[in-house]
Amino acid sequence: MRNLRFDIAYDGTDFCGWQFQPRKPTIEGCLASVLKKILKDHTHLVASSRTDAGVHAAGQVANLRTGSPIPCCNLQRALNDALPLSIRINGVQEATPDFHARYDAKAKIYRYRILQVRIPSPFIARFAHHVPRALDRSRMAKAARLLEGEHDFTSFAASDPASGEPGNHSESSVRRIFMSRIFWRPRTSILVYEVRGSGFLYRMVRNIAGTLLEIGLGKLEPDEMARILESRDRARAGPTAPARGLCLVKVEY
Amino acid sequence: MRNLRFDIAYDGTDFCGWQFQPRKPTIEGCLASVLKKILKDHTHLVASSRTDAGVHAAGQVANLRTGSPIPCCNLQRALNDALPLSIRINGVQEATPDFHARYDAKAKIYRYRILQVRIPSPFIARFAHHVPRALDRSRMAKAARLLEGEHDFTSFAASDPASGEPGNHSESSVRRIFMSRIFWRPRTSILVYEVRGSGFLYRMVRNIAGTLLEIGLGKLEPDEMARILESRDRARAGPTAPARGLCLVKVEY
Repeated sequence: MRNLRFDIAYDGTDFCGWQFQPRKPTIEGCLASVLKKILKDHTHLVASSRTDAGVHAAGQVANLRTGSPIPCCNLQRALNDALPLSIRINGVQEATPDFHARYDAKAKIYRYRILQVRIPSPFIARFAHHVPRALDRSRMAKAARLLEGEHDFTSFAASDPASGEPGNHSESSVRRIFMSRIFWRPRTSILVYEVRGSGFLYRMVRNIAGTLLEIGLGKLEPDEMARILESRDRARAGPTAPARGLCLVKVEY
Repeated sequence: MRNLRFDIAYDGTDFCGWQFQPRKPTIEGCLASVLKKILKDHTHLVASSRTDAGVHAAGQVANLRTGSPIPCCNLQRALNDALPLSIRINGVQEATPDFHARYDAKAKIYRYRILQVRIPSPFIARFAHHVPRALDRSRMAKAARLLEGEHDFTSFAASDPASGEPGNHSESSVRRIFMSRIFWRPRTSILVYEVRGSGFLYRMVRNIAGTLLEIGLGKLEPDEMARILESRDRARAGPTAPARGLCLVKVEY
């Protein structure tokens, strides 16, 4: 059996997330049905993250085991020919037999984009959360930095209905955040929250983004971020920011 | 009666063009149903161009007459609240009583975007035509310039099934092209064909883009552009380039 690694980008807008659901458009469902035709194999894709409905990816990674002898470059071409333009396979390569896209991930980078214009362009609106009100970026940057390091992120975790993962206390909610910062792209008026961490709980980045927005709007003080973390209480953090702003940028192994 | 001017942007991907069609998603249909609720008026929108299915607009202009007293800024806000994010109203203003978005247009600018990468990003794919093969940009630029001036564009006109406009010889196919050029955006690997003219026949820009692509690929010589114009024969020009690459950028009055 070969173990193949796939590097995948997608516009998540019109999908009900990564994970297969009967009779619903999902990234996994779409990929699996195309892979089945090409590989003539019963296949199970493992993704680094099962991104939520509406969330995008520029650098999702998945792997699967197959007995098919099809060369990687032919498989990539056949997949891109058959998939909708909203899903692109940027690479297919042979992985070591034990490579596991989810368990072997050392770090992931997510970006949350906030569009700071009065009227959002329809060419950007699918990929950013529109916030016309002024945001205090230095307050947001200060709060974002407080998340760096190893913390229990229970306050930012929603319970995942599909997996029984953290949020329901079945495993640790401690994660290490290597980098958590805010930057501003003046040309497009997009405020970006970028976070690189060892792993993320269900909806954690969107819950952090929602909290940073409250801080940027002056509803919460930047220092409150530390107290929200300590409280281990989801009710203390801000609301979940909309999925459209979130993108899984890169997975590191 | 007031005469209102609307500046409109849209992602045309999921619409069957500007013009109303029963039981089909169209820009006009979507706008008209929202306007009817807000203005409580029987309204008829006139657009500068009835863009085709899948074609985008950054600066479409339309006007309508209404007896409603609603202030322009309230109308703009109510429209943007009710419309999908794929359609945005960038401005609403009082126009002179005789302003007509279509007949008064002095010039229009269109851009046709060609994405020159091996694998198109799903974040750009809706708004550009993907051509992975190398294109000779200087040949395309030379051919593009040959279109400047006043010409009979019959060779680049398709017959418009909806209107009986040029293509079926019911009126002149002569148009003045003020500017016709190719430029390259290295950061995004997008080749742009930009054209500014007094008016355009049905599918004219896409037929020009398709011909420029044949020239860029070496299938036609740049000088052939002049002979295609002279021939007044649609069969001599290249195929119609896909709608996704085309955007109505600006209308001048």
